[in-house]
Amino acid sequence: MSRIVMKFGGTSVANLECIRNVALRVKKEVDQGNQVSVFVSAMAGTTDKLVGWVEEISPLHDAREYDTVVSAGEQITSGLLALALQDIGVPARSWLGWQVPFKTNQAHSAAQVEEIEIEGLTERLIEGTVCVIAGFQGISIDNRITTLGRGGSDTSAVALAAAIGANRCDIYTDVEGVFTADPRIVPSAQKLEKVTYEEMLEMASLGAKVLQTRSVVMAMNHKVRVQVLSSFTDKPGTLLIDEDEIVENKIVSGITYAKNEAQVMLVGVKNNPGIASDVFKGLANENINVDMIIQNETEGGRKTDITFTVAENDAAKAEKILNEADNIDFKKLITDMNVAKISVIGVGMRSHSGVAATMFETLADRGINIQVISTSEIKISVLIEAAYTELAVRSLHTAYGLDSK
Amino acid sequence: MSRIVMKFGGTSVANLECIRNVALRVKKEVDQGNQVSVFVSAMAGTTDKLVGWVEEISPLHDAREYDTVVSAGEQITSGLLALALQDIGVPARSWLGWQVPFKTNQAHSAAQVEEIEIEGLTERLIEGTVCVIAGFQGISIDNRITTLGRGGSDTSAVALAAAIGANRCDIYTDVEGVFTADPRIVPSAQKLEKVTYEEMLEMASLGAKVLQTRSVVMAMNHKVRVQVLSSFTDKPGTLLIDEDEIVENKIVSGITYAKNEAQVMLVGVKNNPGIASDVFKGLANENINVDMIIQNETEGGRKTDITFTVAENDAAKAEKILNEADNIDFKKLITDMNVAKISVIGVGMRSHSGVAATMFETLADRGINIQVISTSEIKISVLIEAAYTELAVRSLHTAYGLDSK
Repeated sequence: MSRIVMKFGGTSVANLECIRNVALRVKKEVDQGNQVSVFVSAMAGTTDKLVGWVEEISPLHDAREYDTVVSAGEQITSGLLALALQDIGVPARSWLGWQVPFKTNQAHSAAQVEEIEIEGLTERLIEGTVCVIAGFQGISIDNRITTLGRGGSDTSAVALAAAIGANRCDIYTDVEGVFTADPRIVPSAQKLEKVTYEEMLEMASLGAKVLQTRSVVMAMNHKVRVQVLSSFTDKPGTLLIDEDEIVENKIVSGITYAKNEAQVMLVGVKNNPGIASDVFKGLANENINVDMIIQNETEGGRKTDITFTVAENDAAKAEKILNEADNIDFKKLITDMNVAKISVIGVGMRSHSGVAATMFETLADRGINIQVISTSEIKISVLIEAAYTELAVRSLHTAYGLDSK
Repeated sequence: MSRIVMKFGGTSVANLECIRNVALRVKKEVDQGNQVSVFVSAMAGTTDKLVGWVEEISPLHDAREYDTVVSAGEQITSGLLALALQDIGVPARSWLGWQVPFKTNQAHSAAQVEEIEIEGLTERLIEGTVCVIAGFQGISIDNRITTLGRGGSDTSAVALAAAIGANRCDIYTDVEGVFTADPRIVPSAQKLEKVTYEEMLEMASLGAKVLQTRSVVMAMNHKVRVQVLSSFTDKPGTLLIDEDEIVENKIVSGITYAKNEAQVMLVGVKNNPGIASDVFKGLANENINVDMIIQNETEGGRKTDITFTVAENDAAKAEKILNEADNIDFKKLITDMNVAKISVIGVGMRSHSGVAATMFETLADRGINIQVISTSEIKISVLIEAAYTELAVRSLHTAYGLDSK
């Protein structure tokens, strides 16, 4: 007997036929004697529709009401899946976030899970009932529905898996697992049988939209055995593992890209001490996340150029803040939306040198100019002109020996 | 300062534009210094869609899951209306059934309100916040969402109006009020300025779908001043009043019809004592409501014919029960779906004679055959061939002097 948490994303529950298929998958686990909790997202398209309504009716919408409206999507799916399970003879009951309860803080529309009261749920699990739980939602201390942010159902599932000590947390989606690169642009990309939490974390935050970043952090912290797999095939997926579980030591695990970046250049900034702090504090105060940063001096140190990247949809706001800041003196502000960030990821980098050199050489051979570089222990990212994205990813995939035979 | 409860049905909140109009109506009441609670139904079509999904995924669906799925419709509307109000500067907050809470019994999908905890709500009303409440839903003792049955938002509104001692309960719908007859078939029908609770109750249960029957009973028991009016005009609607508030004493207030009836005839039943009880107990055990009943003896009292009406969609079930009952001995069972029930309603009947005679004479003049008659203190109903429905209603409307000048 194992305790298993399953999670099905929006495309896996897109219509009644999909929901019936999900019920059959759940039944398989139940028939093997497992205690099963299932998280569901809203039916594909539902959350977008609800969010659209909220934004249309009140552009500066109250996040509390946003959460009330948007959480209805998962509520509908959880009830429907419970019914589909009952219909094939599997005892099942739906649970909404407030019924479990999934207690969160009051950061509406991006709430953090603080505590899950698992007593009621585990009682039902032990008596053999499948608990179908609405993902993405919780309840705040003032009795209001909260939501965990887009993709939050992953976090719901991993959080419960951690809380009930689940043996496995299977995240079903519309792809077969985590690949060495996006198979849509690299046909020779391979599915990874295993990937470390750290690598997955870099991949998630760098554009591979398989898992929500926060869910990976939570899985890493609580050592939850997360598996990413497709609800449309019966193939094994990708298992998230700890670094010390690695047997075969690949140097690079994957190549990712992100096109929704913007490069902001502040040219000819008067180089006072603390000028970088002034720039980035101003942006941080407005909740703008800055990713890559480079700074180099000009005019013998009297001036400096500061270049950084932000999310594309933050670019206009960032420009406005910098133009209006009276403590920053610069000549020119240039924003370039036409960029892509390409990253090479692998825990093997820790012990192998030459990974960066291979990357730069490969791109140079293809005539691709590198605009910004940033690195972490297990990742190297470069900013290039967006038009070269596919070429860069494919060339690097080959250079690091990731192509399938 | 008055305490006002407003309720808007599905067509009044059918889309974002309608919801914005509702917000303006609510604002008017707030601007007059009133404490306002607003109930909303699901956007027109939503409940039908959700019910359709539930029935398709599990024909013998669990009513608890039905309630979880279907209640999402009102949840969405309540959040959207709260946002629309905030957007025009009116402080507003949505409340779901479980948040108030609206405590109900456990009769899922047809629950009864048992208690409303009004403390939290009235606190907000006093501080000037509009409470937008999801109608039709409550919470049972085991922490599950319940729903009050189709049209239940009327009952939610009246129940709260009674609980908080509201000065008025305005039910906004897509018609201008209660009419002397269905204006679609009687162009000369007039809107009633006032109608007694008793008359409204007969009208509601006899086919005039303006208010849910249960909400009228509740309004009558708690003397809630209910007004039915249109959300698409600014005309006054129809006020529900107590009989002793009547000034002008009309004898007949309205003519209603219902086409979803079926007549069941048991011919040549062996006339044992208690035979009627055997017939109707068998039907009652299967929750089939019987409406009109007549019985007459044949063959010198040894045989009897029993005729009654049931809802059209119960007819097949009723036939089956009677055919399989081994304690009822009859020659023939004839079911006729091709019937309509026409009713004449008016509290004035209590003090005036000749109302029935006028009805029978009017129908006879038109060559309309009466198949069954049933009466109450303030109503006379007859069953006729369905094809004559419009002719009968129009002729009676004229005969009782209800036509507008």
